[in-house]
Amino acid sequence: MKFSSKSLEEAVEAFASLPGIGKKNALRMALFLAGKEKEKSKGFAAAISRMSDQLKECQKCHNYADEEICAICRDPARRSHTICVVESARDVMAIEDTQQFSGRYHVLGGVISPIDGIGPEDININSLLDRVQKEGVEEMIMAISPSIEGETTTYYISQRLSKADVKISVIARGISFGGDLEYADEITLGRSIVGRLPYKSNDNL
Amino acid sequence: MKFSSKSLEEAVEAFASLPGIGKKNALRMALFLAGKEKEKSKGFAAAISRMSDQLKECQKCHNYADEEICAICRDPARRSHTICVVESARDVMAIEDTQQFSGRYHVLGGVISPIDGIGPEDININSLLDRVQKEGVEEMIMAISPSIEGETTTYYISQRLSKADVKISVIARGISFGGDLEYADEITLGRSIVGRLPYKSNDNL
Repeated sequence: MKFSSKSLEEAVEAFASLPGIGKKNALRMALFLAGKEKEKSKGFAAAISRMSDQLKECQKCHNYADEEICAICRDPARRSHTICVVESARDVMAIEDTQQFSGRYHVLGGVISPIDGIGPEDININSLLDRVQKEGVEEMIMAISPSIEGETTTYYISQRLSKADVKISVIARGISFGGDLEYADEITLGRSIVGRLPYKSNDNL
Repeated sequence: MKFSSKSLEEAVEAFASLPGIGKKNALRMALFLAGKEKEKSKGFAAAISRMSDQLKECQKCHNYADEEICAICRDPARRSHTICVVESARDVMAIEDTQQFSGRYHVLGGVISPIDGIGPEDININSLLDRVQKEGVEEMIMAISPSIEGETTTYYISQRLSKADVKISVIARGISFGGDLEYADEITLGRSIVGRLPYKSNDNL
């Protein structure tokens, strides 16, 4: 692509460096901002710059935060005796969107994966074990992706906590709402049969 | 979507304001930059900010430029007796990519569209007529998207130049009716420039 303006070219390159954005889409975005009033495009740049300056990792749960401790860890209304353990900060957002969980989180920042050279020391497991002791955690919900690595991580953590007085649960595995039995994989379908629940007609949904 | 960080939320909103970017994609981009070293995400913001500061409209051809006159208008190697008339600066890039045109451009900045209240005075037609006179233009290639409005614009310009000693041609109909120049592939667009035809006002669509 040939550009008559160096600054436009650099803006397009910046957009094209983002995941899933090709050159044509990058151009579209850059021209969209170029066509806006100066304030708008300046505001856009400022928002990214501010994030780069301010975004931190919560010292407690490793979630994204603007301060040392994130808003969820600081919220006195959240039940501190239940911790939901997730792989990434994106999972926290996904679970928050369900509005079904009022405890706190712990972001591992990955899963144990020997093939990728990721051991227990490389993810936030020690800080989780610390929290379980210090914060008097009663229940730990493992909301880790159901993969070999995820299962390994859950198993490892449960072994490390075998002597602690904490209930460990895993999120239910089964057929997604609106999903088709026919297209579900065998493991998921198998687990949803093994983990069947008593039918209650007043169950919501 | 619930955010534990205000700065992250604002960055996501900034991305989501771009055309064709939904909330989930915006989050993906913001987290991509958040996960990079500070330098990288600062560089991204700086590129957008620089574009916003530096991007100008060429005083001659109305293309995007970093200076008063764009690089194409300043290039002595480009033939100044041939002007390619396009709707937008994006079309200039698309034609430049074909490497089939070595003249100069004139960006109209739109087409005549009575239904949208856009008349000949609202787009860069007067400056085009000035250039035809002052620069001794011999040929004018109309590379306007083939739509009713585009044809109207071509017709209007040809009428205004009916007494001028300038050959008016239109790019070959290689592009489907209603199609956008911007999305045409390079070969089709290149051929349509090489195979341009003399303009006749009674040519129907």
